[in-house]
Amino acid sequence: MGRKVELPKVAAKTEMEILCRSRIDRLRLRFSGLGTDSYLVTHLPNIRYLCGFTGSAGILLVESSRSSLFTDSRYTFQSHEEVRDSDIFIAKHGLIRAVGTVLRKHPKRSRVAYSPTHVSVTQKSAFQNGAGPRVRWVDGGDTIEKLRAIKDAGELATMNEVARLNSDVFRGVLGAIKPGISELNLAAEIEYSMKRKGATGPSFDTIVASGPRSAWAHARPSPKPLRKNELVVLDHGAILRGYCSDMTRTVFLGRPPAKVRRLYAAVLEAQEAAKAAIRPGIMAGKVDAVARGALRRKGLARYFTHSTGHGLGIEIHELPRLGRGDEAILEQGMVVTIEPGIYLEGFGGIRIEDEVVVTARGAVELTNAPREFLEL
Amino acid sequence: MGRKVELPKVAAKTEMEILCRSRIDRLRLRFSGLGTDSYLVTHLPNIRYLCGFTGSAGILLVESSRSSLFTDSRYTFQSHEEVRDSDIFIAKHGLIRAVGTVLRKHPKRSRVAYSPTHVSVTQKSAFQNGAGPRVRWVDGGDTIEKLRAIKDAGELATMNEVARLNSDVFRGVLGAIKPGISELNLAAEIEYSMKRKGATGPSFDTIVASGPRSAWAHARPSPKPLRKNELVVLDHGAILRGYCSDMTRTVFLGRPPAKVRRLYAAVLEAQEAAKAAIRPGIMAGKVDAVARGALRRKGLARYFTHSTGHGLGIEIHELPRLGRGDEAILEQGMVVTIEPGIYLEGFGGIRIEDEVVVTARGAVELTNAPREFLEL
Repeated sequence: MGRKVELPKVAAKTEMEILCRSRIDRLRLRFSGLGTDSYLVTHLPNIRYLCGFTGSAGILLVESSRSSLFTDSRYTFQSHEEVRDSDIFIAKHGLIRAVGTVLRKHPKRSRVAYSPTHVSVTQKSAFQNGAGPRVRWVDGGDTIEKLRAIKDAGELATMNEVARLNSDVFRGVLGAIKPGISELNLAAEIEYSMKRKGATGPSFDTIVASGPRSAWAHARPSPKPLRKNELVVLDHGAILRGYCSDMTRTVFLGRPPAKVRRLYAAVLEAQEAAKAAIRPGIMAGKVDAVARGALRRKGLARYFTHSTGHGLGIEIHELPRLGRGDEAILEQGMVVTIEPGIYLEGFGGIRIEDEVVVTARGAVELTNAPREFLEL
Repeated sequence: MGRKVELPKVAAKTEMEILCRSRIDRLRLRFSGLGTDSYLVTHLPNIRYLCGFTGSAGILLVESSRSSLFTDSRYTFQSHEEVRDSDIFIAKHGLIRAVGTVLRKHPKRSRVAYSPTHVSVTQKSAFQNGAGPRVRWVDGGDTIEKLRAIKDAGELATMNEVARLNSDVFRGVLGAIKPGISELNLAAEIEYSMKRKGATGPSFDTIVASGPRSAWAHARPSPKPLRKNELVVLDHGAILRGYCSDMTRTVFLGRPPAKVRRLYAAVLEAQEAAKAAIRPGIMAGKVDAVARGALRRKGLARYFTHSTGHGLGIEIHELPRLGRGDEAILEQGMVVTIEPGIYLEGFGGIRIEDEVVVTARGAVELTNAPREFLEL
């Protein structure tokens, strides 16, 4: 704690010339590898990343020499305020139809990349009907998600700010964590505090799980009141200017028994070991193995039932994943959570989660809330 | 206001015998029309509706003589608590793979319906690979969404409760609607109040739009403070036991000029006319035409830039749509919003939205907050 965050100033050398350009140009640099001459972007977080548009209806068509955002008349003003590096088309009779009309005018056979995970079967057939038989559809895979995994300086500044805001929320609600308050009401306090501090809202449904319910890794807050001598897991994140934060703390209401202290220390040790393992070039699965290994040495590995962490940014779950065997290579500028946890059915759970940014000198923490075991 | 809600006791006669059965049986009654012998349900709200499961990972396979929910180990306990009328399979290596294994064992050629709007291209090809060539995939369209459009007595009771909770939220925040509070902070108060009243959260991002921003039908709350002599549009909904509510009120900070009063009266009159037109058997587009016609007679139709309303329930937007030319026929037990609005660029917007249930004696209001023009 108190460790000063120095955000990485330069990206890895191989990316230098890419970062000089717009995000859309960085996508275009991937066209030859995909064997395509355009990319049809349908996933709204990808559209926001590439051109800045935040509306709820949009399709972005990135071609070699132009980029076009298709949206509807609800977003005429907003799109003109927000969108960069792209022309704007206000579609009157559906976005897909408007895109089809443009693609159909392509002078020759063209190859259009798209992300099949972000296009429904219905949409795909509408795109095909609209664009006609001269368009060949190419699986673009997670090309854009991979670009998004490496944050630029502006993104890192925002993510630092929202991680600190989220940490402030935790510090601020400590006084409300008392026997008698219900999990639901504590979750309401947490989300209210986020918004009062300027967040647009929570980045996921806040988790407050107390007593035996803390052993459910995905518990939703219930009307159950917090009671003395219980573990309480709080997992919350805020959104600021479109970027997510995510942290978890586990506290104890009263004086924890020695066993609980030992379990907490084991989880914290696993988290610190995983953080210490982070550096550019390491495989994501190796970081997971370090956390898992630390718990194994305490005989606790079987209670660690999820992954060690995940990337985050515009979405709460992004690349890379830090799970068993994940082969992604960590790079400078990635932001990931490190969140080992153990869950003992009928007894309770303990999870400690921070966000860190991968830098040349290792993991730098963005979350800055206390990590020691708090007795409230 | 104050009108007592008598929820419809019986459904239309043709549905009588269907309502005696489980929801899954009601879906099975649609199999012959679809020419199918099973339905693969991938959309989580449809899964929740049919079998009660509320987790974030699930696929429901409804066959003629059995129904099976596939989920993962995170939901072992929860699924056993929640799921009715279906067996539970905990998949170890992915839900789609588990479903494929079951379908592959079908003794003969089978026809499996699915909803192509709720299956990505990637998922579809995984289903096809898993199930093998003997399975013929049939477009199930919006079969399940049509079942969901007609609420049963239990659903209506919950929707009445959450519409009243949402109305209470509006009444409760009236005191906070003052010059100086920001749109974001007012939205925070509204969502906090929902949760304090027992809601699990908002059913959509709360809209607070003041002054000229109220002319943006889809404005998000901004840091802009409310000012004297401004219109303020508040559009919010809560979720209770999985069911959504949705209402809009427009208030004025100060004494509204005569022009603004006339505009408000015109919108309220359009809303009342649309409500009065509602009865079982009417076409949805006709209700929209009534609202639009009322505004046209005041020369305001061109400022009414969206539909008159929409169904809601487990999702905030469900069937039927009440827009221009929509051909759905309203039936007893449908719950819809009636929300005409006018938006004058640079001046402001006025929208009034209530939820109503379609009954044999017409529209019965679920929202019970004041509808007169409030001067705060």
